[in-house]
Amino acid sequence: MPKKNLFYAQSGGVTSVINASACAVIETARRHKDRIGKVLAGRNGIVGALSEELFDTSLEDDEAVSSLRSTPGGAFGSCRYKLKSPAEHPEVYQRLLAVFSAHNIGFFLYNGGGDSLDTANKIQLYANQSGYPLTVVGIPKTVDNDLMGTDTCPGFGSVAKYVAVSVREASLDVASMCNTSTKVFVMEVMGRHTGWIAAAAGLAPDASGIPPVVILFPERAFSEKAFLAKVQSKVQRYGYCTVVVSEGVRHESGRFLSEAGDKDAFGHVQLGGVAPSIAALLKAKLNLKCHWAVADYLQRSARHIASAVDVQQAYAVGEAAVEMALAGRDAMLPVIVRDESANYSWHLDELPLSEVANIEKPLPNNYISKDGFGITQAAVSYLQPLIQGEDFPPYEAGLPRYQPLKNQLVKTKLAAFNL
Amino acid sequence: MPKKNLFYAQSGGVTSVINASACAVIETARRHKDRIGKVLAGRNGIVGALSEELFDTSLEDDEAVSSLRSTPGGAFGSCRYKLKSPAEHPEVYQRLLAVFSAHNIGFFLYNGGGDSLDTANKIQLYANQSGYPLTVVGIPKTVDNDLMGTDTCPGFGSVAKYVAVSVREASLDVASMCNTSTKVFVMEVMGRHTGWIAAAAGLAPDASGIPPVVILFPERAFSEKAFLAKVQSKVQRYGYCTVVVSEGVRHESGRFLSEAGDKDAFGHVQLGGVAPSIAALLKAKLNLKCHWAVADYLQRSARHIASAVDVQQAYAVGEAAVEMALAGRDAMLPVIVRDESANYSWHLDELPLSEVANIEKPLPNNYISKDGFGITQAAVSYLQPLIQGEDFPPYEAGLPRYQPLKNQLVKTKLAAFNL
Repeated sequence: MPKKNLFYAQSGGVTSVINASACAVIETARRHKDRIGKVLAGRNGIVGALSEELFDTSLEDDEAVSSLRSTPGGAFGSCRYKLKSPAEHPEVYQRLLAVFSAHNIGFFLYNGGGDSLDTANKIQLYANQSGYPLTVVGIPKTVDNDLMGTDTCPGFGSVAKYVAVSVREASLDVASMCNTSTKVFVMEVMGRHTGWIAAAAGLAPDASGIPPVVILFPERAFSEKAFLAKVQSKVQRYGYCTVVVSEGVRHESGRFLSEAGDKDAFGHVQLGGVAPSIAALLKAKLNLKCHWAVADYLQRSARHIASAVDVQQAYAVGEAAVEMALAGRDAMLPVIVRDESANYSWHLDELPLSEVANIEKPLPNNYISKDGFGITQAAVSYLQPLIQGEDFPPYEAGLPRYQPLKNQLVKTKLAAFNL
Repeated sequence: MPKKNLFYAQSGGVTSVINASACAVIETARRHKDRIGKVLAGRNGIVGALSEELFDTSLEDDEAVSSLRSTPGGAFGSCRYKLKSPAEHPEVYQRLLAVFSAHNIGFFLYNGGGDSLDTANKIQLYANQSGYPLTVVGIPKTVDNDLMGTDTCPGFGSVAKYVAVSVREASLDVASMCNTSTKVFVMEVMGRHTGWIAAAAGLAPDASGIPPVVILFPERAFSEKAFLAKVQSKVQRYGYCTVVVSEGVRHESGRFLSEAGDKDAFGHVQLGGVAPSIAALLKAKLNLKCHWAVADYLQRSARHIASAVDVQQAYAVGEAAVEMALAGRDAMLPVIVRDESANYSWHLDELPLSEVANIEKPLPNNYISKDGFGITQAAVSYLQPLIQGEDFPPYEAGLPRYQPLKNQLVKTKLAAFNL
C-alpha cells in the first residue's frame, strides 16, 4: 500500500490535555512508518488546511513530541471556524481536497467537540462523493463533557479536578474569614449549556458535607427566591458557603443570567460574568459580604493540576484514532466506555461521527439533587474516577516547562486561497 | 521558671501557607514543654481572645499538627478586626489581659500583616504599662508582600507562583485561539495598593519574551492611551497578549479603576472587578475579542501549587517566633533577609514591630520597566527565587487532603464579653 500523509488539526476551545492526544497521534504514526508518511498539523486547525499552512511534525524530535503530553493549549493553534455545507460553500471543500491532494494526505484526524466532529463528518461525505481517497477519524475533546456516546470527554476530567480542588481550597479561605468578613465565595465556571463542570464542585465537600457548596446548573432555571433561601440556610448553619455558578445558567424565560439585560434584575449592568451578578444579588438581598472569582481560561489550561486519568484517556483516543484510520474505520471516532466493575476501569469503543456530532448531552436528571443546588451520589460515582491521579508536568526554575515546538511550515504548492 | 501558655492567633486575609507558620509554632512549642504549657489558638484571630474562645491545640495529635503545613486557609479562623487605641477602648484591652490572665498566657504570637502587627504592638505596650507579664512576638504574613523590613512575606511566594503558572498556562490557551477568536486574556490579581503580585506575571515569559504580557501596576497611574497602544502593539506582533491587572490600579485622579464611578470612563457599571472593565475597554476601543478572569481567593488559597521556598519561610518564621518569645524578644518579629550570594539563600533576623507595622512597601521604581507595563531584570532577580520548588500536598481520591483539626475550645472562666 502506498504511504499517505496524515493531517491532524485541533479545533474549538482548547483543553489542558488536547496536546496529549496530539502527542499520541504523532507517536503512533511514527510506529507505522510503512503506512503513514508525515503527520502534517494544521496551523490553527482546519483553517491551516484551507490556507495551506501545514506544520511538518517530522521535524520535531521525539523528546519534543513526548513533551506535548504535558503541555496545555493547542500546540498547533486551534480555530473557531465552522464549515457550511458543501452546497453553500463548494469552493471551501474543493480547496480542502486540493490541499490534501497536493500534500498526499490520505488520513484526516480532527480533534474537537461536537461542532468539529460535524465538520469532520461533512468533509468525509464530500471526499467520498468526490472520489477522493480519504479516511476521516474524529478525536473527541471538550472540557464541557457534553458529547453523546462517550462516557466522558478528554479535557473534562482535568477541569473537574481543577474546579473541585479550587472550591476545596477557596472554601477553606472563606471559612477562615466568615466570622468578621466574607461570608460567601462565588465562583463562575465554564460548561456552556450543560452543568458538567459546575457539578464537579460537588466533589469538594468531605463526608461531613464541609465545605457547604451551592451549585447553579444550566439544567435548572434560576429561581432567585429558592437560591437566596438556600444560601441563607447554608450561611446560618455553617457561617459561610461557596456558590459555584455555571456560565450557562438561565432565567425561567430562557435568558442567560450573564446577558447584558441583567441590569434590571440585579440593578447592575452585566459585563459578561455571572459571578459578579450573583455576588451583587447576595449583597443586595441578604446583605452578605461576598468575594467572587471567574476562572475562565485558567480552568481549562490548568495543566499543572491535570487529572492523570484524563491525560491517559486523551492519549488513548489519539492513539486509537491513528489505529482506526489505518484500519479504514472511516467517519468514526473512538469513544470511552466505562466498564461495569467495582473499581473504575474503562476501554475504548468506536462510534460513527454522525451519532456524536451536534448533539449536546446535558447532566442527567438523577445527577442533580432534588433541591436543584447540589449533586447526587450517582453524580459523585460518575465524577469521582475522572479526577483520579496527578500527572504533574516537569518543573524548571519554579515553573512548569512547556516546551514550544519548532512548528515549521511545509512549502506551499498551491496558489493562495481567500478564506 | 513557671510554665506559661502561648496564645497564637491568625489575622487578616489568610494565605496558602499561614498554617505552615501555625504548624511551626505548635511543633516548636511542643519541643519546649519545660517553658510552654499549651498553645491556645484564638478562634477567628484576636476576636477569639476577646470572646474567650480558645482552641486547645494540645488535643491535636502530632500527625494533625504536621498536616497543617500543607493546608491552606486559616486553621483556627482569622478576622478583620482592628483594635483602636487603649485610650479609645480601654475595656477591650482590659478584657484581653483578663482572658490572658485567666488562661495563664505569658506569650502572644500574632500572625498577620501590617495592621495586625500594629495591633500586636499596641497590646504589648498596654500589657507593659499594666504590669502584665506578656511577651509579644509577631509572625509576618501577607500575600501582598508589602511589609517593610523583610525581604519577602510568607504567603507571597506561593501567590507569585500561582500567578506566573496561571499566566503561562492561560497564555498558551489564548495563543491557540487568537487566529479566529480571542486575542487578549485579561487576568485580575490581588495586591491592594502595591503591585508585587501583578509583577509575578512577568515571570511567565520565557527568554524569547513569549508569552507577551502587559502588566498594570498600582504604582503607575492608568493611562488609557498608553495602555491601548501597548496592547495593540503586542497583538500586532504576536497575534495575542495577556494583560495582568492589579486590583489596586488607579486613574491619574487617584480613583481606583475598580470603583463604581467607572461607568463614565468605560461606558459600563463596574461590579467590583477591574478585569471586566479592561476587557470592555479593549473591545470598545480596539475591537479585540477578550476573555477575562478574576482569580480572587483562588490565588491565595492555591496550596496545591505553593512555592516550596515560601512554605519553608512560613515555617521558619513560626519556629523563630517561638524561640524569640522564649528569649524574651518582646515586641519584635522575625524577618527574612536575603543573603548576598550568587545562589539564592536567606536567613532570619528580627525587627521591632513598630518598624514594620502600618507601613506599606511599594514595588521599587527600578522593578518596573520604563514603559510602565512590565518588569525589569532587577525584579526578575528578586522574584525568581521566591517561587522555587514545589511542595505538593498529599492527595487522596484525586484531591488534596486538607485535614481539619478537632478545634476543641477550652472551658471559659470568665463572664461573656460584648465585642
